[in-house]
Amino acid sequence: MQLTQHADYSLRVLLYLGLHPGRRCTITEIAEAYGVNRNHMVKVVHKLSQAGWIKTVRGRSGGMSLALKPEQINIGAVTIGTEPHMNLLECFDPETNTCPISPVCVLKHGIFQARKAFLDTLNRYSLADVLIQPEATLALLHQAESVGDCSSHRGHVKP
Amino acid sequence: MQLTQHADYSLRVLLYLGLHPGRRCTITEIAEAYGVNRNHMVKVVHKLSQAGWIKTVRGRSGGMSLALKPEQINIGAVTIGTEPHMNLLECFDPETNTCPISPVCVLKHGIFQARKAFLDTLNRYSLADVLIQPEATLALLHQAESVGDCSSHRGHVKP
Repeated sequence: MQLTQHADYSLRVLLYLGLHPGRRCTITEIAEAYGVNRNHMVKVVHKLSQAGWIKTVRGRSGGMSLALKPEQINIGAVTIGTEPHMNLLECFDPETNTCPISPVCVLKHGIFQARKAFLDTLNRYSLADVLIQPEATLALLHQAESVGDCSSHRGHVKP
Repeated sequence: MQLTQHADYSLRVLLYLGLHPGRRCTITEIAEAYGVNRNHMVKVVHKLSQAGWIKTVRGRSGGMSLALKPEQINIGAVTIGTEPHMNLLECFDPETNTCPISPVCVLKHGIFQARKAFLDTLNRYSLADVLIQPEATLALLHQAESVGDCSSHRGHVKP
């Protein structure tokens, strides 16, 4: 069981933007900081923008920043919003389910309860809650950026 | 986010065996009852047997049955034991993790807590707990078997 790479990278982008308040960040910069594929990051950023979590500005001095305050961005909502689905078992989606015992199955209620507990826990966290070690995190990001070829933005980092 | 098909089918096999106490069931019978690929079910049964949840007997009158009482089979343990891993994010596995901020990241602790809540909930269920509607479930299984080509075992079903 795992979250998709798309959800994982979405959370990382929001984390990065939350750790760099007051300036616009670029896709290249974030992809290099995390050492992940830039094309994948383009799709992630597009979806985050569509969902209203980030705002983007085109052009030479363009880039992206959070569209909301970190305390307004709920980790549970981002997880649900960036995962393709949360159907833990085949029977969770009645349109594609083929399991014949689904209508009377008790097991799925247990899995439903477990999923609820999972999401209830995530719903208690905002992006602000997971930014409480910004200095240490920024130092590591800065280190990662220094290793990568990202001279165009290195000057913007505030460790 | 979803459980793998392997874990899904593993739970279904245990459910089926729990609903047919006192006799041996065959792989063909279970695969047909659920309408799933028999080859996939062979692998599932092999792993369940290796893990000690079911016991198998070879030969003409062979088949499988639960190796433990339903109340001794924990749904959380089966889920963990049949999922390849529970690494929700890349950083959960330090051996393959590439995320540079992992050492100081606070987000992963939130996801850890959510996974714990998920598993804690599943740990409260035994196989016996999810068999509390056996009559209705058996009736549906019987219906599914009657539709499939499984004349060799139909006589064994006790609705």
